[in-house]
Order: sequence, then structure tokens, then C-alpha cells
Amino acid sequence: MEKKTQPALHRKRLIYEGRSKRVYETTQRGIAIIEFKTDFSRNHDGKQSDHIHKAQLSASISHHIFSYLQSFRIPNHHVDQFGKNELVVRRLEMIPISVVVRNIAAGSLCARYGLSEGRELEFPIVELKYKNESLNNPMVNESHVFAFGISTPEEVRTMVRIATKTNAVMRSFVERRQFRLVDIWMEFGRADGQILLGDEITPDTCRFLDIDTNALYDGSIYRLGVGDYRSAYQTLYQRLTS
Amino acid sequence: MEKKTQPALHRKRLIYEGRSKRVYETTQRGIAIIEFKTDFSRNHDGKQSDHIHKAQLSASISHHIFSYLQSFRIPNHHVDQFGKNELVVRRLEMIPISVVVRNIAAGSLCARYGLSEGRELEFPIVELKYKNESLNNPMVNESHVFAFGISTPEEVRTMVRIATKTNAVMRSFVERRQFRLVDIWMEFGRADGQILLGDEITPDTCRFLDIDTNALYDGSIYRLGVGDYRSAYQTLYQRLTS
Repeated sequence: MEKKTQPALHRKRLIYEGRSKRVYETTQRGIAIIEFKTDFSRNHDGKQSDHIHKAQLSASISHHIFSYLQSFRIPNHHVDQFGKNELVVRRLEMIPISVVVRNIAAGSLCARYGLSEGRELEFPIVELKYKNESLNNPMVNESHVFAFGISTPEEVRTMVRIATKTNAVMRSFVERRQFRLVDIWMEFGRADGQILLGDEITPDTCRFLDIDTNALYDGSIYRLGVGDYRSAYQTLYQRLTS
Repeated sequence: MEKKTQPALHRKRLIYEGRSKRVYETTQRGIAIIEFKTDFSRNHDGKQSDHIHKAQLSASISHHIFSYLQSFRIPNHHVDQFGKNELVVRRLEMIPISVVVRNIAAGSLCARYGLSEGRELEFPIVELKYKNESLNNPMVNESHVFAFGISTPEEVRTMVRIATKTNAVMRSFVERRQFRLVDIWMEFGRADGQILLGDEITPDTCRFLDIDTNALYDGSIYRLGVGDYRSAYQTLYQRLTS
């Protein structure tokens, strides 16, 4: 890392803390460090070694995928991996909207629209969610986002365009690794007047189905402690980063 | 009416029955009759004379507003009023999507997004609802509508364009009559490859606020039997059709 960013990068100030991540301002202008936490979590009472394993794996998968997306000119915040459970990224002014792209009907989509679980959608569905936990992250459209002063129609169109392209690239990426991409949740931010894909890309933000067994691989394996977490995550990690 | 449509128009077959309306195929190709029912309703146990009054008023208000919208070249199904509680319209293949345009925060919008009731929105909000009562008419966006095979992106854009223009025309129409237009629910259908605004435009599909008193004028006055229904509807009718 130090070869790329001179002078040496140091954490300066915590600017965000979520359930599984901390984000730090650094000594370098416009650059942040994302630390995947090893000392949580709310939903999982597993061993400390599991937390560390999960954090390192999230950093490595994100590093691998963001770098891959950059080779397709998908504008994102990624700079490099930094230590085992940290990423160096461009600092973004985050937009409080999640862009969800769905290829296969699952979860809340099925409940809302009466679809059967696992149905392949003929065309991807793109949803915007307003990130507000007290309101339960409600679905919005472009006109809500604009009327509430969250973002402009141009920004929303840019986010949707990047999200759709990311989904297309990710689908064929994971299919070559014997997974189907059920859905992917993305977040975006502004840096120097540009919209960049940010946050993380991990089993906490994507759901994968094994092409052969149809087994679900996502963050719930870890969070709910269902199944053999270690072996599932090892499979995911090896296939996604190979 | 008979002067306009030769030969004389007769009902042929009931093709739809809802809570407050029946729609009939007629002896004339491509032409339907909408009858506002005088013999309901599920939610209102008022007098028979009230039902008749309400049905006639809905027909007259719809007739007046659809004709007005046509003078602004807003493509809609309206042909003429026919008897006191009936309308002659072009027969449409209905699209099961409601397009809701909101100018003032009210009702479900406030609950969903934590807005205060009565807040003037800086820009109108346009929502699409999938008309499916068993799913509770859930909100959708263009990508759901397309993925579920309900309509094409082009049709959705046309519906939204017509809805937005209708809202703008209606806002100034009602403001000159001392009302503010809170929101308006519209339905659309296809006829000869064209998208037309259909259904009704009445206090059951629009909410009005009196500019001076801020009193709410909408279908709930009738349905819930709150307040002085007769005098409220008489005011609405006189102001809207004057």
C-alpha cells in the first residue's frame, strides 16, 4: 500500500460506525479507511475467531470484486486492501439510498408481490430504498428522492445505470464460479462531482445460489449461525476470489 | 346523446363491476357505458336518495373534468354524459396500475416517510400502484411493471407523462375554484394502440383542501358518513362544475 500512497496513510478520525464496519478519515485528503469489525456482533454469538475470519473475508472479497469491476470501468471508491480486514477507499459523501437489483425472486419481493421464491425474473428489477431504519428503509422512486431533497434525477439515473451494469458484470462473474446472483444491494456517494459505487460487495450485500445444489450463500449463514458457517464461507471465498 | 352516436346506443353486456361503478359493452363497437351505482354501498348505510345523489354527482363531475382535460389535449376516454348517472366512454383495455400524483403530504405517504400531514411538497411525487387487492395494491416502479409483464417501459412513461400533465392542469383548475389538490389517482387503458386516461375523476379519486378553511373534501365524507355530506358535496359540485 505505502508504495501507492505517499506519505504513509494513518487513521485520523472515526467518521462512521455501523454494525459490521467502521470508516475513518485518514491523513490523506479524500482517502478513507474502511475497517471490517472483528469485535461485534448484535446477531451472532459465535467465537471471536469467527468474527476475525469473517472480517478478513469481507475485506478480501470486496477488494477482489471492486478491482474486477474497475477493469470494466465501473466507477467505484476502491483503492486497495490495507491490512487483513481494511480497505483504502476514496472518501465519499454518501447518498442515503440503497439501489437493489434483483434477478431471482426472493425474500421481501415475494411477500410484496405474491411471487414464488426462486422464480427467475425475465428482466432484472431495480428498487430504490431510502436508508432510514426508523422508517424501515422504505421503497422510494425517483420522484420521492427528488421531492425529499435527497438527490437529483440525474444522480438517480447515474446510480441506476451503474447499478444495472454492476449487476450484469457480477452475474456473469459469479456464474463462471457456479453461483447464481439472486440480488445485490449497492450504495453510492459523491466525490469531486462524480457518483461512485461505494460501501462493500460481500455476502452481506449479495445473495448467491449454488448452481448445482441451489443452496443459499449469503450473510445469514453467519448472522443466524445456521449451517456450517466456516465451510460455507470458505467455499464462497475460494470461488469468488479464484 | 342520440344525435351524436348513430345508431342509438344500448347496453349489451356487463364487463366490469366495482364498488361504485358498472361498465357495459354497448351496441357500438369500441364504446362502453360507465354507470355510477345507485344501489350500494359496502361502507355507507345512508339513505337511498344519498346514493342516487352521489352517483349523479360523480357522473357530472367526471363529465365536466374529462371534457375540460380534452380541451388541453389530454388524451382520455370520455365521450359524453349519458343519462344522469352514466358516461359514454371509449372502451379501454385497462392496465392494472394506478398512477398517483401527490402535491401535498397526506395519508399513507406521511406514515411511510415520516412527513407531517399537510406539508406542501416542493415537487410532485408520482407513484405507481399495482392494482391487486389481495396484495394491498403495493407500490411498484417501472422495472416491476416490466418484469411482471404488466406493461412496457414506453407505456409507463406515457402514463406518467399524461398523469403529470393532468395533475398540473387540475391543480390550477381547482385553485381557481378555491381548492388545493392534495393528490389524484388515475387509471389508464389501451385503445387502438393509444394510451388514454380512463376511469373517473371525482372526489373518490382526488382529495381537495378548501383554500381558506383547510377542510378536506374527498370521498371519505360520503363513505364514512362524517360531517354534513349533502352540503359538502353540493359545495364541491358547484365549485368544480362552475
